[in-house]
Amino acid sequence: MKTFEPLNVGGMTLPNRIMVPAMVTRLSGEDGLVNQDIVDRYVRYAQGEVGLIVVEAMAVHHAKAGPLLRISDNAFIPGLADLVRRIHDTSDSKVVPQIIHFLKISKSGWRQTVDMLSIEDIDRIVEEFGDAVARAREAGFDGAELHSAHAYTLSSFMSRTNPRKDEYGGHTLETRLRLIGRIVENVRRKAGHDFPVGIRYNATEFIKDGYTVNDAKVIGLRLAELGAAYLSLSVGGKFEDAVHVPGHVPYPYTGFSGDRCMPGDWYPPVTNAHYAVAIKTHLRAHGYDTPVAATGKISDPDDVERLVSSGQVDIVGIARGLLADPDWPKKVRNDERERIVRCDYCNVCKHLDGTHMRVICSLWPQGTLQAPTDDRSAAAPQWESAGAALTATAQTGSVLLKWSKAAGAARYDVYRCDELGNVSFIDAVKVTRWEDKEILAGHRYQYFVRPYAATGAGSARSNTVDVVLPVAPGSAPRASVAEAVS
Amino acid sequence: MKTFEPLNVGGMTLPNRIMVPAMVTRLSGEDGLVNQDIVDRYVRYAQGEVGLIVVEAMAVHHAKAGPLLRISDNAFIPGLADLVRRIHDTSDSKVVPQIIHFLKISKSGWRQTVDMLSIEDIDRIVEEFGDAVARAREAGFDGAELHSAHAYTLSSFMSRTNPRKDEYGGHTLETRLRLIGRIVENVRRKAGHDFPVGIRYNATEFIKDGYTVNDAKVIGLRLAELGAAYLSLSVGGKFEDAVHVPGHVPYPYTGFSGDRCMPGDWYPPVTNAHYAVAIKTHLRAHGYDTPVAATGKISDPDDVERLVSSGQVDIVGIARGLLADPDWPKKVRNDERERIVRCDYCNVCKHLDGTHMRVICSLWPQGTLQAPTDDRSAAAPQWESAGAALTATAQTGSVLLKWSKAAGAARYDVYRCDELGNVSFIDAVKVTRWEDKEILAGHRYQYFVRPYAATGAGSARSNTVDVVLPVAPGSAPRASVAEAVS
Repeated sequence: MKTFEPLNVGGMTLPNRIMVPAMVTRLSGEDGLVNQDIVDRYVRYAQGEVGLIVVEAMAVHHAKAGPLLRISDNAFIPGLADLVRRIHDTSDSKVVPQIIHFLKISKSGWRQTVDMLSIEDIDRIVEEFGDAVARAREAGFDGAELHSAHAYTLSSFMSRTNPRKDEYGGHTLETRLRLIGRIVENVRRKAGHDFPVGIRYNATEFIKDGYTVNDAKVIGLRLAELGAAYLSLSVGGKFEDAVHVPGHVPYPYTGFSGDRCMPGDWYPPVTNAHYAVAIKTHLRAHGYDTPVAATGKISDPDDVERLVSSGQVDIVGIARGLLADPDWPKKVRNDERERIVRCDYCNVCKHLDGTHMRVICSLWPQGTLQAPTDDRSAAAPQWESAGAALTATAQTGSVLLKWSKAAGAARYDVYRCDELGNVSFIDAVKVTRWEDKEILAGHRYQYFVRPYAATGAGSARSNTVDVVLPVAPGSAPRASVAEAVS
Repeated sequence: MKTFEPLNVGGMTLPNRIMVPAMVTRLSGEDGLVNQDIVDRYVRYAQGEVGLIVVEAMAVHHAKAGPLLRISDNAFIPGLADLVRRIHDTSDSKVVPQIIHFLKISKSGWRQTVDMLSIEDIDRIVEEFGDAVARAREAGFDGAELHSAHAYTLSSFMSRTNPRKDEYGGHTLETRLRLIGRIVENVRRKAGHDFPVGIRYNATEFIKDGYTVNDAKVIGLRLAELGAAYLSLSVGGKFEDAVHVPGHVPYPYTGFSGDRCMPGDWYPPVTNAHYAVAIKTHLRAHGYDTPVAATGKISDPDDVERLVSSGQVDIVGIARGLLADPDWPKKVRNDERERIVRCDYCNVCKHLDGTHMRVICSLWPQGTLQAPTDDRSAAAPQWESAGAALTATAQTGSVLLKWSKAAGAARYDVYRCDELGNVSFIDAVKVTRWEDKEILAGHRYQYFVRPYAATGAGSARSNTVDVVLPVAPGSAPRASVAEAVS
């Protein structure tokens, strides 16, 4: 598989094409120091042998922000150096920190915007980024990633909604790009031209008057010219459409742009990759081979392979899927996909991040702070002697599935088969019931469930049940599907 | 071209694959009656020989709504019948009315939502749709289109955000689909099973927690089963993210979902068609050949041909492009693309609609209420003896183009050529200057303009100018493009 071919990214060699994009863990304290929980979280990804680990955003400055890593002072270097050493001691995974600057925001909903910054403030930000990346190099990181996506300072300058009127203003594309240009130049001066620096930015903003992939293609070209080691594409995640809960600091993933940034279970898979593909195509047409990473609800190994083997993108970022199971790369490479703990995109992790609680995956065993270790000697769950006894009951507009417990099961994966024979994994649950609210009356659906131990071992699937919801009187479809197909 | 092959749509034969989707004209009075301006507007489309004319939304009920057509009483039939007769007397274009129900809304921003409707209210809406479509048949329309898109009643029931809890509620897909099912059944009973009834609905909602194309595929399957003559796909246009200007009735195209519904000049062309393609593919897999129409910033003849010749969709809706030039179909068929008045997606038309002013195209001659007639005997504009004298001046972040007037020019189309040789139409202006704010410093761009008479005749292009914006100091890209390509 192309997925497992190495890739040269600005001088560092990724062992494969899988990346953990930056995910805030809320495991650090307000002191911004690396602690044991942080080390454990990232070493766990290295154990899974992912190609590139992007450590969660760490701030270039000291502004208040709840639990968040910092790289704003040399005092943070030893902790970061220890983190890097532990990762490098574990596997060939490469590791870079995501470097962030953000503006002030309050519980009242007020927030500082880029037009409130003086030229001195901007000059300071330029220096802070340079210093931060130099510290990253000092700490032994393989490179660094500048965070120019979502709701944060660099992205706000790049935005079409940037309200400034000066040489950093939103009135032209070049002025929107001036700050990132100065920062990259300063980073190179302070951290060296040979230190790989990637940039994460939005492929489209998904807000009113926000920029679209039209601009993102040209922005990508400029970033490639600036010598970006890679471009990691995200979307949305803006304050402009965030839902403000009175008394809480606005969280930029609560509006529609947040839905699109971390698409939930009702979104199609691979929702945003076509934007990254368009940007890669544009770069290539202009003679640039800068590696491009696509992200956004991607976790099926076939989708990943299709994206990289076709050359549409070079790297695939898997955030929630690797949180659920950091061993995803190893399991796919070893052809053990059946053992993967599959993310069901319930977004409990997103909710925890938004409320500043320690981020875990709801599929992990209760009370644990890290993904369980894959235990290959552990027994698979066992259905009771009566078997799964899966039943389906038609309700008004939904089907209720119930089944027996399997001894040793930590969760059950629920599968649905449509009348064309397409089998889909549709949810992962810890209880023994599940309701399907997304089906059409008059159509035949089949379901089965499969129990899994916390450590990865799956057992035999349950019996399969068939169900057809009766069509409501007075709205009878004209033809049944059987008639239509024949 | 496949674009000009006829298509059987539920019994009516469209002469070609081009459709004018419903566009509110604000030409009617508050009485809801067809008047001469309305007749002129739609006859103009028939003169252009478009395949299907969807007459702007007309209400099934009497609720207050500013200037809007009505089909809520038999008294409206004669005016509508006259409109249909005038269209049929003009060309082979088929014509259907878009039939709408909407809820109450006030200048305070308050709006009625579907959970405020009693079962009796719902029963009344079901009957009103049936009666309205029966009137459409009586008036001689070739069919009808039910408006289940954007911010209106039927779409709000279909939405994942539908807050009802009963058998019409948002908690399951089937309950969301119950109202449209009952309406189609009632329409058939009252207007006949042989009267073609298409349905316009959203391929994705583009609002927080809104439905995605995942649901739209299944919704499309149900609508096909219900016997929809065609499915016309739109997106967004919701009240949930509308910007409320105090003292004004909220307009559902003012938020991000409105940006996506009528994508402006900063959006890529053919922005939303992939959703319609996914729905068509889903229908076909299930054995349904229901014609599917894609819409959303499509107006290039090659894009249209690609969409229909590949079978990705059956019909292409061109709204703003046909407002700008109703003769688009005739000109493309006659291989006279150069004469098309090309929409630049400035969205003046959208703004007029939103402020309840009569909707015109800003490219038409000043003071006219209808698109000018293509006058093939009229002279083309003439550059003065000194020629176009096009000049380009590099500014901070932008290029300012200026040129001489051409005698008889009603507008100038501005073209840009990038360094790969791609020539793009980028704007249409009535003045002799234009500023490009979307270019990258350090790259070579070429520009030329072309003057057009109001009646369609274009003249020779201007001289071509070359420009490279200087790169700002301190943010120098590492490699010039020439180096990168070599």
